[in-house]
Amino acid sequence: MADGERRGNAGSARREGEDRARTGRRPGRTRTRAQILESARQRFADLGYEQTTIRAVAEQAGVDPALVMHYFGSKEGLFQAAIDWPFDMDAAAAKIFEGDPDTVGERLVRQVCRVWEDEAMRHPLAAIVRNSLEREDVARLMSEFVAKEMVGRVVRRTGDPDSALRGALVHSALMGLAVSRYMVKIEPLASAPIEDVVREAGPVIQHYLSGAV
Amino acid sequence: MADGERRGNAGSARREGEDRARTGRRPGRTRTRAQILESARQRFADLGYEQTTIRAVAEQAGVDPALVMHYFGSKEGLFQAAIDWPFDMDAAAAKIFEGDPDTVGERLVRQVCRVWEDEAMRHPLAAIVRNSLEREDVARLMSEFVAKEMVGRVVRRTGDPDSALRGALVHSALMGLAVSRYMVKIEPLASAPIEDVVREAGPVIQHYLSGAV
Repeated sequence: MADGERRGNAGSARREGEDRARTGRRPGRTRTRAQILESARQRFADLGYEQTTIRAVAEQAGVDPALVMHYFGSKEGLFQAAIDWPFDMDAAAAKIFEGDPDTVGERLVRQVCRVWEDEAMRHPLAAIVRNSLEREDVARLMSEFVAKEMVGRVVRRTGDPDSALRGALVHSALMGLAVSRYMVKIEPLASAPIEDVVREAGPVIQHYLSGAV
Repeated sequence: MADGERRGNAGSARREGEDRARTGRRPGRTRTRAQILESARQRFADLGYEQTTIRAVAEQAGVDPALVMHYFGSKEGLFQAAIDWPFDMDAAAAKIFEGDPDTVGERLVRQVCRVWEDEAMRHPLAAIVRNSLEREDVARLMSEFVAKEMVGRVVRRTGDPDSALRGALVHSALMGLAVSRYMVKIEPLASAPIEDVVREAGPVIQHYLSGAV
């Protein structure tokens, strides 16, 4: 995975200076950021993904909404930070959806495998999966997030509103792949080389994306 | 789901009489059966699915191996009873794999949806999924069982040994479908009518089964 896809802390010193200038708070960026994330977790848990606004999170944290945007860029970015989502989905999606449209399925499968093969990402992702299956409130939240941001991304790309069900099926197949290969470790899937998995699963995922089954 | 697919207790009175004749134990079938299951859970947990034998389970339970076979029919049946697997996989598989080979994918998807839509089956299945993701020993056990009995079933039917990876991918896609639709409840998949899901996902699963991607 390219460095640029990992969430970085570059510029945090600069931002800390800005924080102080804006808020006058002493411990600066780290505490403010933690405070915003804590408020975000509460709001998302209470209201769900759709109903939570940047404004409401900022209000609860006692900061300006512009500061929330400054740190997290968007509601999606704020949510991903709140649940410790370990990579930048925008960058990953850009890589996957640009290029030959006939091999998007292969790139999706390869990306899922690469992300899960990186221990630093596998652990937080596995924790998110477990939490979603154990706690109904987390399930509800994740389900809204996936429908809006992940399935929505497929629908927006294809421009076909009927593709929402297929988009959700793509997500379900990729989640099943990750869980079977990296968590339950079902053979021979668990020890197959990535490119074998890409070769077998990529074209199948592609059928969902193209709608040609 | 047809009655015959649900694990029944028919014939238990008759079997209880046989138990007494064979073992001389007073509380009869219920206690003996529970004892065998407890021994099975221990053996499976210690040795995994492949290494556990009917003989070893019988020995630990202090009964004749023939009695274990009499109650559970096979190691697979014993395992399914030990983990509270809620339906008869042989009966389900027979229904799915008989009939038009070009629509096996559709029948698989329909069967998964029907099983998970039945509350009496959804709860134990969800518990098995959660346990597999939380506990490494359960994951290892389930992974061996799925590879041998579920993926193996696909491979035996197609007669193509290269289909093992595709069989594991079928399993992963169906597990992803069940988890997304019935546990995390991702829309619009969660509220789509079964036949819409069958129409979209059936042919895609079929691609794995036929090897024509």
